[in-house]
Amino acid sequence: MNPDPSSDSARAVLERLIEEADAVRLRDFLGTLAAEEVVRAVSRLGDDSRARLLAALGPEAAAHVIDQIPDVQAVDAIELLQPGTAAAILHELPGADRADLLGDVDEPVAEAILGAMEKGEAAATRALRDFPNDVAGGLMTVEYLAYNEDRTVGEVLGDIRANAEQYRDFVVQYVFATSRDGRLVGVLRLRDLLFARQDRAVNTLMIPEPLTIKSDAPLDEVRAFFDSHTLYGVPAVDAEGRLLGVLHREAVEEALAERSDDTFLKTQGIVGGEELRTMPLLLRSRRRLSWLSVNILLNVIAASVIAFYQDTLSAVIALAVFLPIISDMSGCSGNQAVAVSMRELSLGLVRPSELRRVWLKEVSVGAINGVGLGILIGAVAWVWQGNPFLGLVVGSAMMLNTVLAASLGGTVPLLLRRFGVDPALASGPILTTVTDMCGFFLLLSMSAAILPRLTGG
Amino acid sequence: MNPDPSSDSARAVLERLIEEADAVRLRDFLGTLAAEEVVRAVSRLGDDSRARLLAALGPEAAAHVIDQIPDVQAVDAIELLQPGTAAAILHELPGADRADLLGDVDEPVAEAILGAMEKGEAAATRALRDFPNDVAGGLMTVEYLAYNEDRTVGEVLGDIRANAEQYRDFVVQYVFATSRDGRLVGVLRLRDLLFARQDRAVNTLMIPEPLTIKSDAPLDEVRAFFDSHTLYGVPAVDAEGRLLGVLHREAVEEALAERSDDTFLKTQGIVGGEELRTMPLLLRSRRRLSWLSVNILLNVIAASVIAFYQDTLSAVIALAVFLPIISDMSGCSGNQAVAVSMRELSLGLVRPSELRRVWLKEVSVGAINGVGLGILIGAVAWVWQGNPFLGLVVGSAMMLNTVLAASLGGTVPLLLRRFGVDPALASGPILTTVTDMCGFFLLLSMSAAILPRLTGG
Repeated sequence: MNPDPSSDSARAVLERLIEEADAVRLRDFLGTLAAEEVVRAVSRLGDDSRARLLAALGPEAAAHVIDQIPDVQAVDAIELLQPGTAAAILHELPGADRADLLGDVDEPVAEAILGAMEKGEAAATRALRDFPNDVAGGLMTVEYLAYNEDRTVGEVLGDIRANAEQYRDFVVQYVFATSRDGRLVGVLRLRDLLFARQDRAVNTLMIPEPLTIKSDAPLDEVRAFFDSHTLYGVPAVDAEGRLLGVLHREAVEEALAERSDDTFLKTQGIVGGEELRTMPLLLRSRRRLSWLSVNILLNVIAASVIAFYQDTLSAVIALAVFLPIISDMSGCSGNQAVAVSMRELSLGLVRPSELRRVWLKEVSVGAINGVGLGILIGAVAWVWQGNPFLGLVVGSAMMLNTVLAASLGGTVPLLLRRFGVDPALASGPILTTVTDMCGFFLLLSMSAAILPRLTGG
Repeated sequence: MNPDPSSDSARAVLERLIEEADAVRLRDFLGTLAAEEVVRAVSRLGDDSRARLLAALGPEAAAHVIDQIPDVQAVDAIELLQPGTAAAILHELPGADRADLLGDVDEPVAEAILGAMEKGEAAATRALRDFPNDVAGGLMTVEYLAYNEDRTVGEVLGDIRANAEQYRDFVVQYVFATSRDGRLVGVLRLRDLLFARQDRAVNTLMIPEPLTIKSDAPLDEVRAFFDSHTLYGVPAVDAEGRLLGVLHREAVEEALAERSDDTFLKTQGIVGGEELRTMPLLLRSRRRLSWLSVNILLNVIAASVIAFYQDTLSAVIALAVFLPIISDMSGCSGNQAVAVSMRELSLGLVRPSELRRVWLKEVSVGAINGVGLGILIGAVAWVWQGNPFLGLVVGSAMMLNTVLAASLGGTVPLLLRRFGVDPALASGPILTTVTDMCGFFLLLSMSAAILPRLTGG
């Protein structure tokens, strides 16, 4: 039950070394920690200490730390640094990461940092920053090798040799051939260059008209592309066919993982963006409360159905036991259907327009499970109160509401997607509110209808 | 509201061509469809038709389809094929995918397929299949280039040239150097080979003692490795340092995405593995029901608290309106904390032993949000019934139960992880049951204590 001693002591050592601004010992100390210990220790520093750590480490080591800690913390730290220091650190990162982080930094600070960058790098970063994170352009790398199609093999190999240091971290599977106006005209594998005569021109060796992806292609299109082509990377081009970058499968997988995480967090009610427990208490509280306060209003609306049937409930108080059960179980059944729909939507197995197909598939599962759950809970009610009619109304309400919950849970995500609303965000609350209201109404109205049977009167 | 016409007509055409077993026209037709249309049309075929499609297409085109459709469908189809046909199709896939699929195929069928494979391929597939999907060995690729350290540059380049066709789909960034007993002793970049003299031995050029990862390293360790090293791939070795494969960042990202999806599905109550709506109705129903029936039992246990306080409830029937609200809102507050804990666990930001740290962070958020929600719902109760004491008990119960829900939601995933239980599976039901019981108990016992105030008696 003790707090983790190693992380806390690592943080204490870090704080002391930051105080002393001892770059060498800071780098040495971080070098002794395992990757997870670095993340824990650095992420638990205060915002100021974290920024001072990055400044003290020097650009290269700082970029390495930035790579490891959560993005939100990296952005906060960058905002606290001198623009020149921030630019030097960002310079050490791959272009796509640089643009991502800067895109989340406050606009005036971001401009100051861009101003401190080398001109070409600043322009490239601006261009990348304008792409959303969920299209090809926002995921592509700008570290690639492209040569004019007229260049010779010898010239290309000479350039690679001369700039070996700069190209060190590039993933050089392919070399791209462009026309004078920047259009992509062909692609070569690096090894094709190796076995070719030095005086041949690139355009005599290249595979012409290579596969490309449009820089504004959304993530699902990109996923489908990589699903159907066993390629490691694909060049990304603009509407005119100009080469803008290279999209690697790895970046797509990473974006898909982030989207899955995001979906998970949203369905669980973490909606204002990722939450870390190192964030300020009031920020965490406010973000969570924004979601909870919408939910409590929806809950009050749903529960008002109960208020309407107070007399029935007074007459058969046992019903009060079953109201929360029906509400909770409908939520469970509906969430299962929501999960399957969201999964099928993201895999492209179903289209948002196929409401009828999904509804038919859900009604049948809902009916079977509804009968099962209805009989179970009906039997409990009958045995407990010794009244078969109580079992009948409780079981019927459960059954009908399970069918309703499955139908709604399956179709609501499709409808929301069709109307451009994020299903991860809205499916849950809509589902719960409607199924709660209907569940309460079904149980209480049926009970009211046969009230004498239930009261034994 | 119509069923998707294009997918359904594509499926109809497919079914006709499968009937005619016309390989050429089948390949042509699939070639005309967009990737998502292939997935939808093929995934909606019956199991038999899908298997016959694969058999008719020929190994290469069939492997391409297998790559695109969901894994469960691919496995079912493979089980229906002749072992020889299945082996020929699997031969066209990368070794890691081949082993993954075969690992999910029924044991006797898998053995028959392995028997139909080329001997070396069968042995390699068996070795890969023994690694779980969430360790380095289960994610590594076995398509890589390794040479004895004594070989010369000329010999290596000669081999690459001679086997260019076989190595076509390899991601050849690196070439690995091994000792006579298979231990990894060094690594070279392909381009280092290009600029070296042909008669130099590999071990005079290689970077010795390269970074490696153990083949049994779990996914989180692998993720931490790639977080702290900007490498595209890393060789995977066994306990003796023998080279077994190469782990690419892309495969790790993909495994992380799958785990996120899996977590999402499990927390939403899809627990028996991924569900597709093309699966048989009874299978879908049974899997969902297995989860629902556990939940309904937990619900009955929680609701029995209400039964215990029937007299109090009869006296103040308005309380019945607030029972489902408190139950549902506690679930929401708790789930938020569960989501943050699961996220922090998977990012390595918190260790399962740090219960006290998490609890302190959650108690404070829970207290603030509990006060907010308590005042809100208390005011509703007061205004509605004109009784400040009703507002007081309802608000207090909401407040206390929100604190409890946040505390439990934050700590239960850590505890479950510590005891080796999957938190995605068990956190939700445990949380809901306990918070429901406590919520009902808090509201009803406090009401019982000041019953005269509530009834105006």
